Amino acid sequence: MTPISAYGEFGLIKHLTENFSFENSSTEISIGDDAAVINPEGQMVVLTTDILAEGVHFNLGYVPLKHLGYKAVVTNISDIAAMNATPTQILVGLAISNRFPVEALEEIYAGIALACKRYKVDLVGGDTTSSTSGLVMSITAIGLENPENIVKRSGAKANDLLVVTGDLGGAYMGLQILEREHSVYLANPNMQPEMEGYDYILERQLKPEARTDIKKTLKELDIKPTSMIDVSDGLSSEILHLSDQSKVGFHLYEEKVPMDSLTISTAEELNLNPVMCALSGGEDYELLFTIAPKDFDKIKNHPDFTIVGHAVDLEQGNFLIARGSNELIPLNAQGWDAFLNRQ
Amino acid sequence: MTPISAYGEFGLIKHLTENFSFENSSTEISIGDDAAVINPEGQMVVLTTDILAEGVHFNLGYVPLKHLGYKAVVTNISDIAAMNATPTQILVGLAISNRFPVEALEEIYAGIALACKRYKVDLVGGDTTSSTSGLVMSITAIGLENPENIVKRSGAKANDLLVVTGDLGGAYMGLQILEREHSVYLANPNMQPEMEGYDYILERQLKPEARTDIKKTLKELDIKPTSMIDVSDGLSSEILHLSDQSKVGFHLYEEKVPMDSLTISTAEELNLNPVMCALSGGEDYELLFTIAPKDFDKIKNHPDFTIVGHAVDLEQGNFLIARGSNELIPLNAQGWDAFLNRQ
Repeated sequence: MTPISAYGEFGLIKHLTENFSFENSSTEISIGDDAAVINPEGQMVVLTTDILAEGVHFNLGYVPLKHLGYKAVVTNISDIAAMNATPTQILVGLAISNRFPVEALEEIYAGIALACKRYKVDLVGGDTTSSTSGLVMSITAIGLENPENIVKRSGAKANDLLVVTGDLGGAYMGLQILEREHSVYLANPNMQPEMEGYDYILERQLKPEARTDIKKTLKELDIKPTSMIDVSDGLSSEILHLSDQSKVGFHLYEEKVPMDSLTISTAEELNLNPVMCALSGGEDYELLFTIAPKDFDKIKNHPDFTIVGHAVDLEQGNFLIARGSNELIPLNAQGWDAFLNRQ
Repeated sequence: MTPISAYGEFGLIKHLTENFSFENSSTEISIGDDAAVINPEGQMVVLTTDILAEGVHFNLGYVPLKHLGYKAVVTNISDIAAMNATPTQILVGLAISNRFPVEALEEIYAGIALACKRYKVDLVGGDTTSSTSGLVMSITAIGLENPENIVKRSGAKANDLLVVTGDLGGAYMGLQILEREHSVYLANPNMQPEMEGYDYILERQLKPEARTDIKKTLKELDIKPTSMIDVSDGLSSEILHLSDQSKVGFHLYEEKVPMDSLTISTAEELNLNPVMCALSGGEDYELLFTIAPKDFDKIKNHPDFTIVGHAVDLEQGNFLIARGSNELIPLNAQGWDAFLNRQ
């Protein structure tokens, strides 16, 4: 193993980034100057940043470093996709303790490189530094887009349909399995982890994908969402954000919330309410958006989309309509803890 | 004192950023959506990011939180200024342990707000999260500029003049005084720190400014630098970066290195070689640039600038020309440790 001190700061960045290639004509100046330069070519610039801390956002006991690098990029690209914009560049900040060898950084950067390749984004800058403890990653993602394509959180109107891509709750169930097996391992390092059969939800947690494909699909369907957000904190929390910014309420139908059968069976195995996991689990990185009622026919049978509810006047509030009973349950922003306590 | 847990993540960001105003017409969408949106209005977009870790980049034992917030913004704006671009927006990432109360975050954001106001940049996004230990800040700064104005590190030619703004070594000497007095305090908390008379160098360390004024001055003088960098790691290291990117060498004249009299007297008090502190101390955030020989007359007596050397063919290497003896001393990238060991 190679200690980080074997490289100087600049030598280290050079070493870690020398195999990155560039996919975007907008990238004018990359790593090696005081700042990167991007030519937006007449488009708007979309920017988002996330900071991820060891022990809070990830546990290196069961998250491989390569996956960590990949996921850190994907979660930021997901925010760009949620503006209906095209991701083009990223900047990476890393604070790492000296307990990590250079090989660990290479693993993180291998994951970053994989995500850059998959999403055609260019790594154009960054900063790597030591920390007194633990690993903190900060990613800034940049997207470019024509102004008429950008979708905000604030455009939903009463009677708009509420639509979500893919399925929900899987990433949260994957995390439950990882934590369960990690606890077993800590108690007895000779025990083999029981991961078999959980592939889909483990992948949802460890190697999520951003729905950059949705922009193209919506364009082909001739639909421009009236508002959009990505599902990073759970469906319930995201609905409340759309409500807050758009000044409407939402009715969400419990029976419509899309879930994979493995998510449901794993929730039941762990004595969790599957819908509550979808509502509050987070990290699915699907897109949640609203469309005008006139667009219903364009989307109704499309396999990528599920209509889960509709917007109502703000005074009507935000509610989950329970399956069977039609009981109105207030949607709660407190996250999954509060939800799970209700069971 | 208010625990951070009294606010949710979104409530906290809202609370910390609600008093920020916007100065730039390019700011289209700010905090509150999945991403910020900037309208570059036909200009190029310049981007830089830094990650700062407690115990590595700052010691909260003697760095006030407000100054920390201010300096973190300034150091990134300095990178934008070093591209000869105009800073316009910032994104802020903060990972903080729960040992900090909300009031500590308010102090950091007060410093960020002061820097935003001073440099007319808009806070357009960010992420605040908990950490298991310590404080890590990540700032991304954005600038906009017409492509013809942007200055890279790579344009210097042999015979170009090497010019630096302001004076050097002060920030490093300020750090030495802060560390000395902090050690005294740790040994005996009843001792009063002896800071009197060190105002200038303490301010250089604790509240540096970015030279965003230089762009206007150079324009008035009708000078476009052939290459430029900011002095964040010490004059020697920055010269080597210009050399590396421009494929030229540099001769730097020891007697020309600009230093404040307090920097010199403090270095002597601490038995340090003043020039070595300027060469290797860092954190002065002055600008170092090259100009074509034809521009010599325009700049020669200007109070903001000192001509410290000139570019030579790459094969001639990078050397400090010693005062008096004219001895050629190789410029060293190893930072101040290596330099100070030479004394």
